[in-house]
Amino acid sequence: MIRGLLSVLLVLVAVAVSSSLAKPEKNIAKRGKRIPQTLSRGWGDQLIWAQTYEEALYWARAQNKPLMVIFHLEDCPHSASMKKAFAEDKDIQKVLDEDFIILNLVYETTDKHLSPDGQYVPRIIFVDPSMTVRADITGRYSNRMYAYEPSDIQLLLSNMQKAKKLLKTEL
Amino acid sequence: MIRGLLSVLLVLVAVAVSSSLAKPEKNIAKRGKRIPQTLSRGWGDQLIWAQTYEEALYWARAQNKPLMVIFHLEDCPHSASMKKAFAEDKDIQKVLDEDFIILNLVYETTDKHLSPDGQYVPRIIFVDPSMTVRADITGRYSNRMYAYEPSDIQLLLSNMQKAKKLLKTEL
Repeated sequence: MIRGLLSVLLVLVAVAVSSSLAKPEKNIAKRGKRIPQTLSRGWGDQLIWAQTYEEALYWARAQNKPLMVIFHLEDCPHSASMKKAFAEDKDIQKVLDEDFIILNLVYETTDKHLSPDGQYVPRIIFVDPSMTVRADITGRYSNRMYAYEPSDIQLLLSNMQKAKKLLKTEL
Repeated sequence: MIRGLLSVLLVLVAVAVSSSLAKPEKNIAKRGKRIPQTLSRGWGDQLIWAQTYEEALYWARAQNKPLMVIFHLEDCPHSASMKKAFAEDKDIQKVLDEDFIILNLVYETTDKHLSPDGQYVPRIIFVDPSMTVRADITGRYSNRMYAYEPSDIQLLLSNMQKAKKLLKTEL
């Protein structure tokens, strides 16, 4: 019995209400068939995506690679424009494929470390394989430090290079 | 900084090693392009799948529907044969589409309630929208109480009917 999860649930509900999170999309194709949902959700169909944060952390650790977590929403225009720029940028896609563990989420996790300055989308957070959230790797906007816009693609690429310089750790 | 997660990590690593979990699959299609990973993973391409356990719990609660969690592995023949029977059974697919929140995972969560008698695949666990794991809804095998084989499809269907009778809750 998961009574202990009740508080987590309440947090989740609060998060969902306050962030107006997307309902599970029902992509109905022309012939009445739904299009299977993909893990990439359009952020890079050729990349290998982790499904969950637990899985992503495991792979980051096992392969000693930094993790990039993208928070977004399907029906958010800022997310959509960032996604397009992101998916079309060959440098970003190449570096991600070779050097990163990647995860995109349309739902917040219960881990507060992934929202250092709040829950908003789009938001890109790096996590070192030592399992340290790289709160030091930020974008251009002081009010939403982990937000990126399409014009920030070069900054994102340079932040990826920062994330690749792994933190020293005593682990 | 996620120092606190270190113990979780160690558990995860232990789990991964002991369960010989699948590596992220690299489906390379004939033309050298990878096939985008789907959330359904072949368990029902026409169904709407939750991505994470947190998301699934949220939707179970919000829609007052029971949740079915399927643990499986891509390279496990028992998982594969069960998946085939499951995806091809129209009754199961219909009931799931109408009355269930569904999640399939190739990676264990950190929630021990989802492994009442151990971590193995394939394993199907029901969760009531009151967030109570329905440990009482079991399959045919006393040593792996939440395992199902293709010949157990009717039992699974009747267990789904059980899960639809929601627990009374004082919440």
